[in-house]
Amino acid sequence: MGGELPGYRGKALQALKGVSAEIGDLLRVTRDGTAHEGLLIERSEYGDEDHVVLKLRSGYNVGVRITPTTRIERLGSGAKPAFVPPPPPPRRPGLPRVAIVSTGGTIASRVDYRTGGVRPALSAQDLYSVVPELSEVAVVEAEILYSLLSEDIVPAHWAEMAKAVARHIGDGVDGVVVAHGTDTMAYTAAALSFALQGLPCPVVLVGAQRSADRPSSDAATNLTGAVLAAARAPFAEVALAMHETVSDRSIVLHRGTKVRKCHTSRRDAFRSVNATPLARLEDGEVTMLSGDYQRRDPDRRLALKPDFEGRVALVKFHPGLDPGVLQWYVDRDYRGIVLEGTGLGHVGGYCHQAVQGAVEGGVVVAMTSQCLWGRVNMNVYETGIDLLKMGVVPLGDMLPETALVKLMWALGQTGDAEEAKRLLTTDVAHELSPRTTAD
Amino acid sequence: MGGELPGYRGKALQALKGVSAEIGDLLRVTRDGTAHEGLLIERSEYGDEDHVVLKLRSGYNVGVRITPTTRIERLGSGAKPAFVPPPPPPRRPGLPRVAIVSTGGTIASRVDYRTGGVRPALSAQDLYSVVPELSEVAVVEAEILYSLLSEDIVPAHWAEMAKAVARHIGDGVDGVVVAHGTDTMAYTAAALSFALQGLPCPVVLVGAQRSADRPSSDAATNLTGAVLAAARAPFAEVALAMHETVSDRSIVLHRGTKVRKCHTSRRDAFRSVNATPLARLEDGEVTMLSGDYQRRDPDRRLALKPDFEGRVALVKFHPGLDPGVLQWYVDRDYRGIVLEGTGLGHVGGYCHQAVQGAVEGGVVVAMTSQCLWGRVNMNVYETGIDLLKMGVVPLGDMLPETALVKLMWALGQTGDAEEAKRLLTTDVAHELSPRTTAD
Repeated sequence: MGGELPGYRGKALQALKGVSAEIGDLLRVTRDGTAHEGLLIERSEYGDEDHVVLKLRSGYNVGVRITPTTRIERLGSGAKPAFVPPPPPPRRPGLPRVAIVSTGGTIASRVDYRTGGVRPALSAQDLYSVVPELSEVAVVEAEILYSLLSEDIVPAHWAEMAKAVARHIGDGVDGVVVAHGTDTMAYTAAALSFALQGLPCPVVLVGAQRSADRPSSDAATNLTGAVLAAARAPFAEVALAMHETVSDRSIVLHRGTKVRKCHTSRRDAFRSVNATPLARLEDGEVTMLSGDYQRRDPDRRLALKPDFEGRVALVKFHPGLDPGVLQWYVDRDYRGIVLEGTGLGHVGGYCHQAVQGAVEGGVVVAMTSQCLWGRVNMNVYETGIDLLKMGVVPLGDMLPETALVKLMWALGQTGDAEEAKRLLTTDVAHELSPRTTAD
Repeated sequence: MGGELPGYRGKALQALKGVSAEIGDLLRVTRDGTAHEGLLIERSEYGDEDHVVLKLRSGYNVGVRITPTTRIERLGSGAKPAFVPPPPPPRRPGLPRVAIVSTGGTIASRVDYRTGGVRPALSAQDLYSVVPELSEVAVVEAEILYSLLSEDIVPAHWAEMAKAVARHIGDGVDGVVVAHGTDTMAYTAAALSFALQGLPCPVVLVGAQRSADRPSSDAATNLTGAVLAAARAPFAEVALAMHETVSDRSIVLHRGTKVRKCHTSRRDAFRSVNATPLARLEDGEVTMLSGDYQRRDPDRRLALKPDFEGRVALVKFHPGLDPGVLQWYVDRDYRGIVLEGTGLGHVGGYCHQAVQGAVEGGVVVAMTSQCLWGRVNMNVYETGIDLLKMGVVPLGDMLPETALVKLMWALGQTGDAEEAKRLLTTDVAHELSPRTTAD
């Protein structure tokens, strides 16, 4: 495992050594009559032994399998000059000020063309060089708060993000963008929606599904859209900006409490559920799609409520769920459990005793639906009525993920379970749509 | 709490006693200038004290609040004649034979108009009286296997259902319909897809989102559609028949492994995910929507594989998930855990040690995505690569719910974890779509 060929082992390593190839060299690798030309890049330490990986001129990486007939030619040596960013464009006075708080993820990275590795790239100067359009939209102030994969973000990070956003708002910016990995971005969007009340300006979360080194990357369009919305949009709420469709034509701004990632890889992976999106951005213009929103008002006083209780669990019910898991959470001093029940808000009768035990143990137990679309209604069937009678809190059309975040937030605001239930069932940021009831 | 007014208490009971009303009486209840006329029906034992409930002529129930100004008039006495079903229509010789196995749920019930209570109604005679169209489509043989709310159905029930279906097929029917509550119908559809291999004829699950006493009920159209598909469709697979849209025009047949309930109340609540539906039924004709299917063949020999291992859990990852819950399942001798991870198949780094512990404890740990749409790909980010290295099994585009059922099934077939993994990752019933890989 030569230091000069990091990540390569076995057959691939041997084949590369056979032509004295080094990382960064221009190679032609031919297999089954097809030739690939590109720069040899490092592999991750867990790569297999069968492929060499080239960075093609197109920006794509390609792995070519080494078989007895694969031929490798070394066309040129590495020594690709280090990336030197061009000087930042001149700032235009009078432009809105936008803070970009980076927490990590694909959006906040750029690929090092020599190694294929991913590096954070969010100094303001880096941003201007990578996305020059930004300089026409706003004066950007960039802060790297974290460099985290979003699956590693926990409630304590939400609190720090809320404080960072509040700091920039206190500093007088016209809007804030939070760059975030897409995996848990919707959870964070909900968290900021509850933690930042009475916003004077937009707070826009943004991510990317494809890294900036791929021709299909959505990083630049999403980031430009988010900055533009933060700078100019008329709303003062927490929103999440991503591609509206697979095309680059429009960016949609989802409400932070009504959005979830509904596709693993598409650029338009995020969807508003049980709600119209807040706004659309097309041809540089923001169009409001929702009529009922909080307007931008620089004089509005932000109420920062950043505390989240970590001892809250989301439990998805399924046929055969062991009800003992609920008691396990009670024994661990959990203060809240959000159930992701079936249909209108049910769990099997064999779980009811455990639910009752949790409620009697002082745990706030709330009900959402794994259908995701629609709303729980626990008055229709006996199962729901039984659970209501035990004290389970029905959460209407609130998404399970939003419900988890809100219960963490509610229990972060108060030590009293009844007061937490009151907060949980009071609409704060459009998470709970009113229901029209017949008589 | 008079025996003659079951479920009524407090104000409502007093007001009804004031006019000597009894269940079944025709009442006019006027509040705030609006008058409702209908038959007084029983309330559930958990009803509040403030409403009387009438069955309107339209079939809807309405609850009218008792306030100091609400007026009740008794227009006629009850004594509504008991429901006497009309005689069954004559059976037409030569029609296909279809077995209907009823397990419970809204589809399998009819409302007693006197009490508002729900009663199972699935003798063949009842069916012919309630849905006379059936007699033109097939000779129906009805079996009431269970009368269960579907949230109470557990893996042991799936095994019995599979055996019941196999019995009817052995008896020579041309198709089988399984009537089921909608809440967990998709889980059961997946279970039957794995348990009934080499089907000679269609097996069609069917449910209803609205009970038969409501004008908007989908029960009759869904049931007729399911029977028609079971009788005549060219496919021999497990499918799930429900409304395709909110209109009554078409019934869609989803594949049993690729379907989930995606709305709490809409009639078109079920959606095929990561797949085209199998077929559509419109104007009495079945149109195949998927080209690749197993054709009906009365000579094909059914392979019944009804065993499911109950000690398998579905754990949805969320920010701050306590990784100790995985160890809890290991300690309870669980044999499988399906993770519903984020994005391409991730869980927070703070869960990795627990995942490794579970794998080392002999538990089969598999990965799906809470995005639901798309497919896991654990080769893109280090997080995924780390999990793969531990032995986590990536499940492509398989739905988390289907993955749970399949792992229960795989571990029901073999005591060997490696063989179970092989079964889990081998496509049995279109649950795992092939993926086109670049070199």
